[in-house]
Amino acid sequence: MVDETIIRSLAVKTTSKIVLLVMDGVGGLRVDGKTELEAAHTPHLDELAARSICGVADPVSPGITPGSGPGHLGMFGYDPLLYEIGRGVLEALGIGMELGKSDVVARGNFATMDQKGIIVDRRAGRIPTEKNMELCALLQKEIQEIEGVQVEVRHGKEHRFVLRFMKAGLDGRIEDTDPQREGHPPKTPTPLVPEAEHTAEIIKLFVERANRVLQDHHPANTVLLRGISQIPAIPSMSDLFKLSPACIATYPMYKGLARLVGMEILETGEGIVDEFKTLKKHYKEFDYFFLHIKKTDSYGEDGNFEKKVEVIEEVDRHLPVLLELDPDVIAVTGDHSTPSLLKGHSWHPNPFMLCSKYERIDDVQEFAEAACVKGGLGRLLAVHEMPLMLASALKLEKFGA
Amino acid sequence: MVDETIIRSLAVKTTSKIVLLVMDGVGGLRVDGKTELEAAHTPHLDELAARSICGVADPVSPGITPGSGPGHLGMFGYDPLLYEIGRGVLEALGIGMELGKSDVVARGNFATMDQKGIIVDRRAGRIPTEKNMELCALLQKEIQEIEGVQVEVRHGKEHRFVLRFMKAGLDGRIEDTDPQREGHPPKTPTPLVPEAEHTAEIIKLFVERANRVLQDHHPANTVLLRGISQIPAIPSMSDLFKLSPACIATYPMYKGLARLVGMEILETGEGIVDEFKTLKKHYKEFDYFFLHIKKTDSYGEDGNFEKKVEVIEEVDRHLPVLLELDPDVIAVTGDHSTPSLLKGHSWHPNPFMLCSKYERIDDVQEFAEAACVKGGLGRLLAVHEMPLMLASALKLEKFGA
Repeated sequence: MVDETIIRSLAVKTTSKIVLLVMDGVGGLRVDGKTELEAAHTPHLDELAARSICGVADPVSPGITPGSGPGHLGMFGYDPLLYEIGRGVLEALGIGMELGKSDVVARGNFATMDQKGIIVDRRAGRIPTEKNMELCALLQKEIQEIEGVQVEVRHGKEHRFVLRFMKAGLDGRIEDTDPQREGHPPKTPTPLVPEAEHTAEIIKLFVERANRVLQDHHPANTVLLRGISQIPAIPSMSDLFKLSPACIATYPMYKGLARLVGMEILETGEGIVDEFKTLKKHYKEFDYFFLHIKKTDSYGEDGNFEKKVEVIEEVDRHLPVLLELDPDVIAVTGDHSTPSLLKGHSWHPNPFMLCSKYERIDDVQEFAEAACVKGGLGRLLAVHEMPLMLASALKLEKFGA
Repeated sequence: MVDETIIRSLAVKTTSKIVLLVMDGVGGLRVDGKTELEAAHTPHLDELAARSICGVADPVSPGITPGSGPGHLGMFGYDPLLYEIGRGVLEALGIGMELGKSDVVARGNFATMDQKGIIVDRRAGRIPTEKNMELCALLQKEIQEIEGVQVEVRHGKEHRFVLRFMKAGLDGRIEDTDPQREGHPPKTPTPLVPEAEHTAEIIKLFVERANRVLQDHHPANTVLLRGISQIPAIPSMSDLFKLSPACIATYPMYKGLARLVGMEILETGEGIVDEFKTLKKHYKEFDYFFLHIKKTDSYGEDGNFEKKVEVIEEVDRHLPVLLELDPDVIAVTGDHSTPSLLKGHSWHPNPFMLCSKYERIDDVQEFAEAACVKGGLGRLLAVHEMPLMLASALKLEKFGA
């Protein structure tokens, strides 16, 4: 496979513009004979498909269901097998933390420990979010720093929180403390490499202090940590692809992922209409836009076929705003499929369409799974989408003499 | 490519069941306008195709004709470029030897050597199998062990035999003694790595003793050894994929390949009808079945188009036994193509169909080469079939956060 080093050596700065429209989890499975995309009335998406080259893209590899991290990295042109985003980092991005390079973050659970130190409930009976907020505030008040390392505790929903350690030189290569099963004691934070020994010691001290703070707060009398991690060292899109990229998204996690690869995050409103308005407003300032629609995925996760169809139709109604800007390249796809039937992410490839006057337009007339399978791009890997977008925007020079 | 380490980390044990039906060498080329699959009357296979997602799968890589080893490893989910099965091992499996981890085996030829020690016939005039049996018995009687290494000599057909050395610590990384051309002396067994020096010395002593035993048995007065090898260190399917796998096959080589990856070999009769009966009988005991049909390949190798068609039709008649069991996932394919037109294995991709309620059913209505090309899976690598089967049996968790 062509790697980023090669793409970097070929990419050139030009005035052409690329818009990548991502409907999160848009791909589906048929219910009563139609997928969500097939059921939706989408005249603008279909008209765009008619003048695009289409295909289906595996986010990672056939059969592999991606999380949001690998799903987006692939579309952004980064091999998702090469850049791993830890669970802690993803959770932190999800609540809008702006992570520094050396920050170490973890996903935390409040849990219940018995008198012998055995975990009897890994989720502390799923305490209400209000209790969680209260306990996080207490932990934050009592543990502001450990041996010069600044500590931040931020609540999530129910028993979940995000824990951050801030100081230059920290190393997140440390095993989970969560034993994954009840009936076992929490594990000691164990460094996976010698460089992480000091950080593991800090985390161990945190757990000890948290246990003292929480001792009278049964069932939430201890914490379990998972996905201890740091943001991966990842080259920026401007470095690799010579792009000035911007992100339009409403959910923190996607803004966070975009920030990881060096996109500028544009202020936008909560609605799909706002996102398209934001694209129009800033259109002159950047040459690559990632426009992310969240609710296709949310309704897919809920198993709500009808609502997922409605979101697709809403995107379709606003598509003319994008079309009128007439970018050199428009790509439309998902980061992974979220069939309502499965109520979760799936392994099925994403429909993908690429509209450019320099592509070989096929005879696909509809933006949907089965139609795109018959398109001119056939089946591809998501990581190849960026080179294709760059090429059809005439932003890639010739490889080799 | 997603490697096995990743699949291992994602695979989960569930109650869902997978059946992989392999018609060896089933893919073909058109003769009088039809391939063997197109010519065969296969109502059940076609009905299954109509409710499956179809595609064509390259066993190793486009243009590469695989032997039975790589052909099967790919389907079983093992990268055939990573795990090499030596010729000696394959021959040993083919005659039903159950190999131990440290056994070293070689494919042997009886050959004719002149008085100057030059090979004048690499196949000893293709001596009859009866003569071969007699000479193997003689060698076995005279050479039972060499310096504490147990020796086994088992005849094959005509001039071919299998030679096995048994003792802990042996190393099979040794060059062939067969010079590959007449007019040259046999080569000395040369170790490819220092660890194989002792084994090479044992093999050298074997050849010297064999030459003495055979000196009055012209034209079979010496032996040539090829494919000196050991079974590769290969993780089991239960380790990698969390499966309890079983093999139903009539030929020793396929049972041997299945045993290599940790399948349990089920007793079955000689006929295709027996194999399907065995599937039904043991259906409750395992969650993955590999059902292997040999004769499609045998007739392909013979160039017997009509007989190959008949075998396909026979499989089709018994298919309802499998269909009635209603496994969560059914996959049907070949390990490689064996077009009657070519009388041998070929590089053409295998038609592949995957039936699961969680796949995107395409509009392919026939299980045949050209029909499957237009299927929803497009063109894939055989090594991706296992992740797809596991995914559509809901046996793979999400990759990455």
